[in-house]
Amino acid sequence: MEKRVEAIADMNEDFAQWYTDVVRKAELAEYAETGGCIIYKPYGYAIWEIIQKTLDAKLKETGHENVYMPMLIPESLLQKEADHIEGFAPEVAWVTHGGTEKLQERYCIRPTSETLFCSFYANEIQSYRDLPKLYNQWCSVMRWEKTTRPFLRGREFLWQEGHTAHATGEESLAEALSILDIYCDISANVLAMPCIKGQKTEREKFAGAVSTFTFESLMHDGKALQSGTTHNFGDKFSRAFDIKYLDKDNKQQYVHQASWGVTTRLIGAIIMVHGDNNGLVLPPPVAPIQVIIVPVASHKPGVSEKAEELRVRLEKISRCKLDNSDKKPGWKFAEYEMKGVPIRLEIGPKDIEQNQCVIARRDTGEKITVSLDALEETIAETLKNITKNLYAKAKTRLDASTYTATDLAALKQILDTTPGFVKAMWCGDDACEIRVKEEATATSRCIPFDQENVGDTCFVCGKPADKMVVWSRAY
Amino acid sequence: MEKRVEAIADMNEDFAQWYTDVVRKAELAEYAETGGCIIYKPYGYAIWEIIQKTLDAKLKETGHENVYMPMLIPESLLQKEADHIEGFAPEVAWVTHGGTEKLQERYCIRPTSETLFCSFYANEIQSYRDLPKLYNQWCSVMRWEKTTRPFLRGREFLWQEGHTAHATGEESLAEALSILDIYCDISANVLAMPCIKGQKTEREKFAGAVSTFTFESLMHDGKALQSGTTHNFGDKFSRAFDIKYLDKDNKQQYVHQASWGVTTRLIGAIIMVHGDNNGLVLPPPVAPIQVIIVPVASHKPGVSEKAEELRVRLEKISRCKLDNSDKKPGWKFAEYEMKGVPIRLEIGPKDIEQNQCVIARRDTGEKITVSLDALEETIAETLKNITKNLYAKAKTRLDASTYTATDLAALKQILDTTPGFVKAMWCGDDACEIRVKEEATATSRCIPFDQENVGDTCFVCGKPADKMVVWSRAY
Repeated sequence: MEKRVEAIADMNEDFAQWYTDVVRKAELAEYAETGGCIIYKPYGYAIWEIIQKTLDAKLKETGHENVYMPMLIPESLLQKEADHIEGFAPEVAWVTHGGTEKLQERYCIRPTSETLFCSFYANEIQSYRDLPKLYNQWCSVMRWEKTTRPFLRGREFLWQEGHTAHATGEESLAEALSILDIYCDISANVLAMPCIKGQKTEREKFAGAVSTFTFESLMHDGKALQSGTTHNFGDKFSRAFDIKYLDKDNKQQYVHQASWGVTTRLIGAIIMVHGDNNGLVLPPPVAPIQVIIVPVASHKPGVSEKAEELRVRLEKISRCKLDNSDKKPGWKFAEYEMKGVPIRLEIGPKDIEQNQCVIARRDTGEKITVSLDALEETIAETLKNITKNLYAKAKTRLDASTYTATDLAALKQILDTTPGFVKAMWCGDDACEIRVKEEATATSRCIPFDQENVGDTCFVCGKPADKMVVWSRAY
Repeated sequence: MEKRVEAIADMNEDFAQWYTDVVRKAELAEYAETGGCIIYKPYGYAIWEIIQKTLDAKLKETGHENVYMPMLIPESLLQKEADHIEGFAPEVAWVTHGGTEKLQERYCIRPTSETLFCSFYANEIQSYRDLPKLYNQWCSVMRWEKTTRPFLRGREFLWQEGHTAHATGEESLAEALSILDIYCDISANVLAMPCIKGQKTEREKFAGAVSTFTFESLMHDGKALQSGTTHNFGDKFSRAFDIKYLDKDNKQQYVHQASWGVTTRLIGAIIMVHGDNNGLVLPPPVAPIQVIIVPVASHKPGVSEKAEELRVRLEKISRCKLDNSDKKPGWKFAEYEMKGVPIRLEIGPKDIEQNQCVIARRDTGEKITVSLDALEETIAETLKNITKNLYAKAKTRLDASTYTATDLAALKQILDTTPGFVKAMWCGDDACEIRVKEEATATSRCIPFDQENVGDTCFVCGKPADKMVVWSRAY
């Protein structure tokens, strides 16, 4: 069998190269002529479309509506909320000319759209009857990053950004938390990706937020990936933008807001959580092709016809494709392995004689012979099992790579030798968090909702501490 | 009944104001702080989502795949095809700074993405086996327009842009024509909008195209709207970008290309083709709400429950919503009329007693009493009839507003008094087309595929002519 494995780096030797190789060889994305940007190729974009469709349905079920805001923000509008502009100004792209004319005011390409939503809400919201506003948009945003990596960090990326307005701070907080649940549900059940949920520290929270919540997942190389965040703004933005409503007692009140987003970064997460030395491994719920049918000896009478017959049967229960190109079966095997297709179905003359086919699982490599009478049940069952297995494997790795430390040297030692998540108690002091960054090049990932007592003193300064924080090196 | 009709201008007196009123009162869009841009509100965006979903499914059925290209184009790349840069340079927005740094090369925000696709294809395409490439993307583009109007002309608009590469010029031409058929099919069956199909003249074709095809529809005020275009590029771009493939005989050949797009302008078309003095009128296939249920005397026992029961029944066969807010029925009637909801269903205590409800058609105003036993059939049937009726009405108006002229004075006279489409023979000379523009402020809309002989001489210069062209004033 011609393998194409030699075409990609070994993930244990050069993880970064392995990642880039998978992105390109699995035809997910290609570098663009526009610096720091990528081209989402059909296979990569199809994964995003599935994530989008799944999440969009959940958001609509829970009463959210889609809108679309301009991609350009006037400079004066961006500057209305002080923390926000401070956080984003260094990394926005500026439009200064329209055609041949210099503009009177510069526009930035949205790095995020809080300011546009706020200015809109200030006009739209008058009364408690107008609340809540549960708006979301699917778009791309731009942040002028210096170092970029496909899907993980780029100047332009695709995302959804929800921006909601509520009567009270309890409601905006509840929104931020319930969206986090939706994200984690999709992470677990669609991406087969376990995660740690929690709150960001003050230092790590979003520019302008009262509190930021996150779900953090663990990549194959032991580094963390912030996979999505939700923010409670309280009335910080509504005071800056003067967004008020008349309550039931005819009193003017500021609204309370939340925002939240996930991005095409999730595609990077899928690659780095499930991938192996043969390439991409896709969990069935997010796989554009769930079953690839490869006819063997397809020039023999009846083989192509049988393969097409199976395709017609399977497309009713799965995203199924038949490859009847004139390439060799061995080439096809390697190709769809690289692309992470969950199930390969082989059918040849001998199989047809015996009313059977062979299916190979991408996650385990296991091959089984299946009676064509039980084809649909077996495929459906196997797809479910692959998702379960991928989640279980990732969870086992996450658990095995989660350590505790009681001093900074121990944390550094762990991250230098067996990278992963490190649980450690923290006093809450900014200075300690900065020391961790400087001395161990690690950051606080979150204060997990599931708190444990892994000590009584801050692992940095030794003062009393009652917050357990998860630390890691991160993408 | 409280009517809100007084809130919008009379379409026969001030069509432009009527249009703006409908856009805002039907809550389709709002002006943004970003000059020349609009905010797509949930109801307007939902219409776009339906168009998108319908077209996307047809494109996928016909083998097209979605991709995503960067929103920024390096200046040097935009300049590669001479006609193209000449057409677009005056109207692009330029990014000159990233953060605080001045860029070495300017980027424009894509006004369209031919150049990006070409640069991508130059690397991707090597052999005849790589052809055809049938790629499409959904995104927004920016053109720095001076005068803007919601949906019709704006600095930023949403669209899809297909960019395909083929082995031969016959194939790229066939692609441009078959996509035009898909567009017209959706125009007729989803938007209930008749149109005239044809080819653009040399003057009116796309910057860089060999030929441009269009479907033109007629607005309520007798002005034309170019509703979507497809372009055959032949090998013009592939020669500029050096996109070659090795054919079956091992010879290097240039690829042949096509591109095609429809935009959120279609929402403007729907408003101006079907709307009336009570507001928007939506064809059922594109209506976010097809049936609005309004309970009458909903405080009476059993009314709310019955209304909810009907909603549950109807959501199985339609996009159905129940408005059980505490607003008065009369307010709701006017509200959903303004929003163009095809069917209003009223249910009150007396109806319940008699096992019936009342349905009112938005297109005709007709009210009929329906037995609840026949509810689903009647609603399904009525939705179909509304689509048919709206198409028939628009077609009758288009036919009645299509004239012929044999000289320029006659054309001007027609457009000044009874605006519409004017068929007239044209010699093919640029100078004549320019005279029509200067003297009658009208443009050639297209050379229709369905040619008629409405004379033997050019209606401008009197020389022999064998091309019938449709002329109009246009948006």
